[in-house]
Amino acid sequence: MIRVGILGATGYAGQELVRLLLQHKEAEIVWYGSKSYIDQKFSDVFGNMFRIVDNICMGEDMDRLAAECDVIFTATPQGYCASLINEEILSKVKVIDLSADFRLKDVSIYEEWYKLTHPCPQFIEEAVYGLCEINRDKIKDCRLLANPGCYTTCSITTLYPLVKAGLIDPDTIIIDAKSGTSGAGRGAKLPNLFCEVNENIKAYGVATHRHTPEIEEQLGYACGKNVTLTFTPHLVPMQRGILVTSYAKLMPGVTSEDIKAAYEAAYKDEYFVRLLPEGTCPETKWVEGSNYVDIGFKLDKRTNRIIAMGALDNLVKGAAGQAVQNMNIMFGLSEQEGLRLVPMYP
Amino acid sequence: MIRVGILGATGYAGQELVRLLLQHKEAEIVWYGSKSYIDQKFSDVFGNMFRIVDNICMGEDMDRLAAECDVIFTATPQGYCASLINEEILSKVKVIDLSADFRLKDVSIYEEWYKLTHPCPQFIEEAVYGLCEINRDKIKDCRLLANPGCYTTCSITTLYPLVKAGLIDPDTIIIDAKSGTSGAGRGAKLPNLFCEVNENIKAYGVATHRHTPEIEEQLGYACGKNVTLTFTPHLVPMQRGILVTSYAKLMPGVTSEDIKAAYEAAYKDEYFVRLLPEGTCPETKWVEGSNYVDIGFKLDKRTNRIIAMGALDNLVKGAAGQAVQNMNIMFGLSEQEGLRLVPMYP
Amino acid sequence: MIRVGILGATGYAGQELVRLLLQHKEAEIVWYGSKSYIDQKFSDVFGNMFRIVDNICMGEDMDRLAAECDVIFTATPQGYCASLINEEILSKVKVIDLSADFRLKDVSIYEEWYKLTHPCPQFIEEAVYGLCEINRDKIKDCRLLANPGCYTTCSITTLYPLVKAGLIDPDTIIIDAKSGTSGAGRGAKLPNLFCEVNENIKAYGVATHRHTPEIEEQLGYACGKNVTLTFTPHLVPMQRGILVTSYAKLMPGVTSEDIKAAYEAAYKDEYFVRLLPEGTCPETKWVEGSNYVDIGFKLDKRTNRIIAMGALDNLVKGAAGQAVQNMNIMFGLSEQEGLRLVPMYP
Amino acid sequence: MIRVGILGATGYAGQELVRLLLQHKEAEIVWYGSKSYIDQKFSDVFGNMFRIVDNICMGEDMDRLAAECDVIFTATPQGYCASLINEEILSKVKVIDLSADFRLKDVSIYEEWYKLTHPCPQFIEEAVYGLCEINRDKIKDCRLLANPGCYTTCSITTLYPLVKAGLIDPDTIIIDAKSGTSGAGRGAKLPNLFCEVNENIKAYGVATHRHTPEIEEQLGYACGKNVTLTFTPHLVPMQRGILVTSYAKLMPGVTSEDIKAAYEAAYKDEYFVRLLPEGTCPETKWVEGSNYVDIGFKLDKRTNRIIAMGALDNLVKGAAGQAVQNMNIMFGLSEQEGLRLVPMYP
Repeated sequence: MIRVGILGATGYAGQELVRLLLQHKEAEIVWYGSKSYIDQKFSDVFGNMFRIVDNICMGEDMDRLAAECDVIFTATPQGYCASLINEEILSKVKVIDLSADFRLKDVSIYEEWYKLTHPCPQFIEEAVYGLCEINRDKIKDCRLLANPGCYTTCSITTLYPLVKAGLIDPDTIIIDAKSGTSGAGRGAKLPNLFCEVNENIKAYGVATHRHTPEIEEQLGYACGKNVTLTFTPHLVPMQRGILVTSYAKLMPGVTSEDIKAAYEAAYKDEYFVRLLPEGTCPETKWVEGSNYVDIGFKLDKRTNRIIAMGALDNLVKGAAGQAVQNMNIMFGLSEQEGLRLVPMYP
Repeated sequence: MIRVGILGATGYAGQELVRLLLQHKEAEIVWYGSKSYIDQKFSDVFGNMFRIVDNICMGEDMDRLAAECDVIFTATPQGYCASLINEEILSKVKVIDLSADFRLKDVSIYEEWYKLTHPCPQFIEEAVYGLCEINRDKIKDCRLLANPGCYTTCSITTLYPLVKAGLIDPDTIIIDAKSGTSGAGRGAKLPNLFCEVNENIKAYGVATHRHTPEIEEQLGYACGKNVTLTFTPHLVPMQRGILVTSYAKLMPGVTSEDIKAAYEAAYKDEYFVRLLPEGTCPETKWVEGSNYVDIGFKLDKRTNRIIAMGALDNLVKGAAGQAVQNMNIMFGLSEQEGLRLVPMYP
Repeated sequence: MIRVGILGATGYAGQELVRLLLQHKEAEIVWYGSKSYIDQKFSDVFGNMFRIVDNICMGEDMDRLAAECDVIFTATPQGYCASLINEEILSKVKVIDLSADFRLKDVSIYEEWYKLTHPCPQFIEEAVYGLCEINRDKIKDCRLLANPGCYTTCSITTLYPLVKAGLIDPDTIIIDAKSGTSGAGRGAKLPNLFCEVNENIKAYGVATHRHTPEIEEQLGYACGKNVTLTFTPHLVPMQRGILVTSYAKLMPGVTSEDIKAAYEAAYKDEYFVRLLPEGTCPETKWVEGSNYVDIGFKLDKRTNRIIAMGALDNLVKGAAGQAVQNMNIMFGLSEQEGLRLVPMYP
Repeated sequence: MIRVGILGATGYAGQELVRLLLQHKEAEIVWYGSKSYIDQKFSDVFGNMFRIVDNICMGEDMDRLAAECDVIFTATPQGYCASLINEEILSKVKVIDLSADFRLKDVSIYEEWYKLTHPCPQFIEEAVYGLCEINRDKIKDCRLLANPGCYTTCSITTLYPLVKAGLIDPDTIIIDAKSGTSGAGRGAKLPNLFCEVNENIKAYGVATHRHTPEIEEQLGYACGKNVTLTFTPHLVPMQRGILVTSYAKLMPGVTSEDIKAAYEAAYKDEYFVRLLPEGTCPETKWVEGSNYVDIGFKLDKRTNRIIAMGALDNLVKGAAGQAVQNMNIMFGLSEQEGLRLVPMYP
């Protein structure tokens, strides 16, 4: 059994980790870490866990964590994970960080977009960006994993094969993304109140959202040059789900078949990526509760653009699910262990 | 492997059966029956099942069903299951009926409340009412199982131990129930449109709802005499979940400890019934996607009444989950097989 | 023009007062009071008011308020209004209090249920309970008006005529109430987050909710004796709306016609009370945004009970609308001025 | 008093016309037309109208309508209005058509996108496209008014000034639009059920939505040449509201001030267009129930694109409100009569 510690277990992503790991045959949660609820029963914080989890929330004693765990998940605010790790910790325990601390290779871009000084830039180089379908080989042996963001996973999975195959012009990429409200976390903030979110839709972080450089960096690897794109997130009155609607100019002569072939080359054997029949638009409800990304596309012949769409559950494939998938890869388990979840409908 | 046929697989309850059985280790669905979608791919009807279920929807050939299945679930309209079965069918295959056809022992009450002539009253006697926690022993050997309704499961589970222990006056029982909209089915009806249900709450079927006699009959068994009660269902703008708030006069001298003791006597070893700490009110969100019933209560000393509350997921413990639980009992499997579902939150 | 001051203008009820008064021909808001947003533009707090309200939020200078206003609405926490008023203030300006400070005539009951020491019990006697349809005559000349609570308005309006006419047994009254989330206010609290409220229903304050004694007091006046009842509120995933489903035993021989006659005697000339055709259940959506209370009922002959139901918009008839209606009465205006609002659907 | 007839009064847009006209001082509805509910009380179809509207739904007797009305609103399916009108009708009564029959000047484009043969193309030329803020002068004297679509009003209002002033490259325009579900109408269709829409977001009609050529035609007038653009609508789990997020390349050297100046030149005196402070993103909730369009924008300097956003209530400014605004202009009334609606929040 893999002994798991979770820091930030009482956020939405942390709690989803708990839900998934409880159904995982090879893992056992031994540490429910939560700054805000130390010494309280985990199931008093999340009533759904009543009689399922009896544990008490604990603090962040990294020495004990490193000694008692095989892997630590950090579902914590930006800068927090980076402030905890050091060579000794990493020599004893693997770390899967759900924050952004190790996602960007260029520390100056991290510090510019996140307005933070990075506490341990020396580990950035070794950290592996954990988009499983793209970086599987590097993930296998890593000890510090940067779990991708929710918007990013959806955007990159949707666009990577097209950029890599040179089918679209990267300079024309526009990503219009829509997210459920759990992506905003469980903090008690006025804009996330039911009465503010319900019956409402709005864009936010326009031209400044922190997931932008992460998408640009990864798509840059796909085409071997810098990519600059427009990314606009929106808040939608639903709990879970991200839908990405992305737009780009097709390169001359590119056909629907070319697009299909590029997607199939990339994903035909991937369990967690579902390529929808042509003309079918993905819906967030079809992946709710599961680790799938659904991808669909349509060519707009009148404008020679592609509209490429992806949908996932932000708490699963966009956070906790992918983190478990990464753990499975890092520990040599079946990649699907604990993640063969049938989406719940309705 | 138990070979399972489902009639009505393309309703919400039918589809939930599919979701649950796909995660069941000892069962295999061999027949996806659906009158409305014959010859269509099941995953074209429910996009969440894309690449998970490849089967085509089929009709209702009972001879083939009886030959090819070990058990048939009928998630079909009232009167339909009763029109299909006969001695020969029942001699070959077990039937778990999610409709109301075999729930009421008195056929005249069935015909009065459902405005239908019962096509095969001769099987009513043998049918077992499948509220697992109460009728487990009878369920084991039955071949025709009447799976309880969603409101009923929640109401009876909440009140049965109190009535049985003589702690409340059955003549004073009032049940005010609230249900998510999936309980209304997937038919394209105006009152179930998003714009009609959203931002709205209303009672319906006041003093006439068909689940009333079913609750009365079962509570009658608990106290050994006829029970007549008031039951009022409400439609709530959510997908899943039933909350029952029930009221009754306490018998003289009854204390909070008595109530607790009665609940514990009934449910302390039950995996799927969670007795909440005193004063905690159950919430439908805490059981979403799972087979749990959460029960809480409060004494109102000023009026000498108890307010007893139960919450469940209408599609799981209120329909498909309990049906699978019954199947497990009927086939001698672990009762929890396929049903160790951690509630999804948020 | 009536010069209006509002304290607590940046809560949901306060903002609704603004919405209504902006459409009122004889009133002008001269003071937007808000402790939390002093010196900020009101329209920065509520984006819907952009270019409609240019005012800045101000504090609570009671001397200036008394000098510059004809009436002050206090949409403030319990105890706050009572801490501000005194004989001098009341001699200069009328006060309409949307909190509970002056609703209960027995100060000991107030202090028991609200866990507060009442700062000026000497004004309780003179305060008029502003349920317009019942107390219209007393409201006319009052200078201190206690605006009823949202649950209370709905409960009392639904039950008062039946209790008064002696058609039901007051000792058997049970009120099961359901409220939209705006009733919980605009404070940034975890239980009111979208992800906590959405897809959820729960009871709260069972047997202890503060609106209970207010309902009991008023129904006590109706029948001339003490009334003790059970009141259970529930939180529903919608913004606005209260539905009350109330239950009581009918007195011997009472018929449907008797009930109808009692309601008509009470409300047939009331503009804001709509008696629905028999058998029609009120829905909160039908009154959204308006000052109506819709009332329906059904007799349950099997149990000799009545199920009496009322629906209103908690921010309008349950708060700001009734407050404006009271202002209209107090200032001798048409009672409907500013309140002829057609419910918005969907 | 202007005598108004409404055909299609029992759809959502028709009912919203009723709501608005009931609060209009110079208009009186004399004909509630509805194919589906002939001879039924209007308030039996829409419970919110109980005791407000006593009228019975009637058919489509155009001779009587022309004789008894000064203006007819047709909130009917495509092709229907065009099948009813002729020279005699138009000589007697003004027609405001909320369908698409007379919005496109090129009948072949209409027939291509709508898959219909136009029954009376001879009136297309004279029909005036009723986007009030742009075509006010032509609207004044017209007798056949084509009321713009919901997506179109929002898209054109947002982009017209930028295209007209030559600040953006029309060939790069991408419109990503999000709509509440009332835009899909009140037909009892499976995809509009609560359980299908709730907790879901999806694109639909990708590259083929019928509002595309309408937007292109109007923006073409703005720049004096053909415009071809990408338009993608999405269905959002809310009742009302449209948000348009549009993208375009800035022409060389264009600054934020240029954009602001163009918007102000176009809208600074417009009552119903609210230009938000720079950097503020419009939200649909801020305009709910009102006739406002809120516009905001942001320059993305990294990509030299503008993100221009507009929000409106699809049933008001996107349908019934603009229709009433057009009526006001056509009859020489104050343009704001009946439309000074304060948005309802929350």
